[in-house]
Amino acid sequence: MRQNFDAAAYVQARQKLINNALAAEMERAGRTAPPGAGVERLLAAMEYSLLAGGKRLRPLLFLAALESIGQVEENELAAYLPFACGIEMLHTYSLIHDDLPAMDNDALRRGRPSCHKAFDEATAILAGDGLLTHCFCCLLAAGAPAERLVQAGRYFAWQAGIGGMVSGQALDIDAETAAEPLNLAGLRKIHASKTGALLESAIVCGGILAGADEAQKQALKEFGRQFGLAFQITDDILDVVGDEAKLGKPVGSDAANNKTTYVSLLGLAGAGQAAQAAMTAARDALEPLGESGRLLGALTDYYCRRDN
Amino acid sequence: MRQNFDAAAYVQARQKLINNALAAEMERAGRTAPPGAGVERLLAAMEYSLLAGGKRLRPLLFLAALESIGQVEENELAAYLPFACGIEMLHTYSLIHDDLPAMDNDALRRGRPSCHKAFDEATAILAGDGLLTHCFCCLLAAGAPAERLVQAGRYFAWQAGIGGMVSGQALDIDAETAAEPLNLAGLRKIHASKTGALLESAIVCGGILAGADEAQKQALKEFGRQFGLAFQITDDILDVVGDEAKLGKPVGSDAANNKTTYVSLLGLAGAGQAAQAAMTAARDALEPLGESGRLLGALTDYYCRRDN
Repeated sequence: MRQNFDAAAYVQARQKLINNALAAEMERAGRTAPPGAGVERLLAAMEYSLLAGGKRLRPLLFLAALESIGQVEENELAAYLPFACGIEMLHTYSLIHDDLPAMDNDALRRGRPSCHKAFDEATAILAGDGLLTHCFCCLLAAGAPAERLVQAGRYFAWQAGIGGMVSGQALDIDAETAAEPLNLAGLRKIHASKTGALLESAIVCGGILAGADEAQKQALKEFGRQFGLAFQITDDILDVVGDEAKLGKPVGSDAANNKTTYVSLLGLAGAGQAAQAAMTAARDALEPLGESGRLLGALTDYYCRRDN
Repeated sequence: MRQNFDAAAYVQARQKLINNALAAEMERAGRTAPPGAGVERLLAAMEYSLLAGGKRLRPLLFLAALESIGQVEENELAAYLPFACGIEMLHTYSLIHDDLPAMDNDALRRGRPSCHKAFDEATAILAGDGLLTHCFCCLLAAGAPAERLVQAGRYFAWQAGIGGMVSGQALDIDAETAAEPLNLAGLRKIHASKTGALLESAIVCGGILAGADEAQKQALKEFGRQFGLAFQITDDILDVVGDEAKLGKPVGSDAANNKTTYVSLLGLAGAGQAAQAAMTAARDALEPLGESGRLLGALTDYYCRRDN
C-alpha cells in the first residue's frame, strides 16, 4: 500500500471492477438460460435490483482482504471477481426479500420502486431465489484452489443462512411484534447476525481465498465484527443528521417508523462515541496483521466518516 | 448389484439413511444457530417442511448414481449424506416458495397445511431462504475431493437456478397468464427446467462425486432427463387414475384446476405410451454404463410403475 493512499480513488476503482463484472455475469447467464418470456422477465427483475448501484461494500471488503493478505495485485483480481459478484448477489437477494409485503413491505429501495413494485410479488420472490442460487454458482467459479473455495463457500453459506443473516432477519421480525421494546443488547444481537455476519464473512472469505492462516482469519473476523458495528451505528446517525441530497434517501425515516436504533437508545452523542469505540476496536483488531492491515484500516476511516 | 435385487427394500433403506441424516443435520444446525424465539420459529418452520416425509427421490437418485459409478459400499455412504441432505433441502425450499400466496397459493402440501399456513408468510419466505442457503453448507460438507465438490456445487447451483428450476418456475407462471394454451412442446420445456433439471442434476452430481468420466456424466445426464420425463408423466396419470388412499392426496386436482398435463394433451392412453417411451429411453441411456447402470435401471422400473 502506497504512503499517499487515496481511499476514495481505491473505492471508486474497485466499485467499477465489481459493477463491470456483475453486468458481464448477468449477460453471460442470460445467454445460456432457457429461452422464454418468463425467463426474460425474471432476469430483468434480477438485473433491476442487482445493477441499481449501491456501495458494493461487501464485495469491496472481500477484495480488500484478499489483496491485503495475499499480496494480490490489481491486475490479478479478475480471477476472484466471480466470488465478489456472488457476495453482492446474495446481498441483493436479501434486500429484495426484505422489501416484500409479508416482510418489511417497503415500496422504495435506493430511491426507486422496490423489485415487487417494479415487477410483481411472484417475480420478486423468484428474482431473490435466483440471485441467492446464482451466488453459489459464482462463488465456486473463482480461480482459487478448490480446498479454499470449499472452505470459503461453506463459511459464507453458514453466515448468510442459519448461522447469521436469515436468522437475524427472523430475530428482527420477532422483535417488531415483541411486547418488550428492544434494549441495546438485543439491538446488537440482531445487527450482528442480520447485517454483521455477511460483512464479516465477506472479509474472512477474502482471507481464506488468499490462504490466510488461523491467526489472520481470527483477526479478519474480529475486524469484520467491529467494522460492521461501526458501519451500522454510522448508518443510524446519518439517518438523523445526514444530508438528504448526499444520502439519496430521506432522513428521519427511522424515527418516523418508530425504529429502535443506536441513536434512539444512546442519543446522538452516545451513538457517536459508540461508533468511535467500534472504529478503534476495528483498527486494534488489525494489529496482528501488521503491514497487511493498513488497507482495511484506511477503509475503516473512509466508511465510518462518510456522509452517505 | 445382486441378482435378486429388491428395489423396494433398497428405496426404504436409503430413505431411512436420508431421513436420519436430515434430522441430525437440523439438530446440529439448531445447536449452533444464534439463540432467540425468532430463530426457534424459523428452525421449526424449516423442520416442519423438511421432515414431513416425501419420497426423498432426488437425494436417493444421487446416492444411487454415486454407488453405481463409484462402487461405493453402503457402509461408506455416510461421508456423502451431507450432499444428499443439501439436495433435499433445496427441493423443500422450492415447495415452500411455490406454495406462497403470490405463487401457486396452495394451502395444503402432503396432506397438511403448507408452511405459510402452519406458520405465516414471512416465516415461510425465510424458511425457504434458510433451506436454500443451508443447502450449500451441506453440499460442500461432503467427504469428497474438493475439486469434485466445487464442480458438483457449481453444476447443481446452475441447474437449480437460472439454468433450470428458478427459470422453469418463471416459465410456468408466465404460461398461466398467457393467451395461448400450452402445447406439448411448451409443457415439456417447462417440466424440463422446473422439475427435470433438479432430478438430472442430483444424478449427475452423484456421478461427479464418484469421479465419473465425461462419457459417464453424459450418460447420467441423458438418463436423468428421460427419467424425469417418465416420472412426470406418471405423476400426471396417477392424478387421474390413482388411488387416493395410496397417493395420500386427492386425485383429479389437475383437471379441477384446469391444468395442462400430459393426460390433458395426449389422453390417458397416449400419456401411458409417452411414459413407456421415456422409460425405454432412460434405460437406453444407461447402456454405456454397462453393469454400473443396473441399479438406476431397476429404480426406473420401480418409480415409473409406482402407484403413489
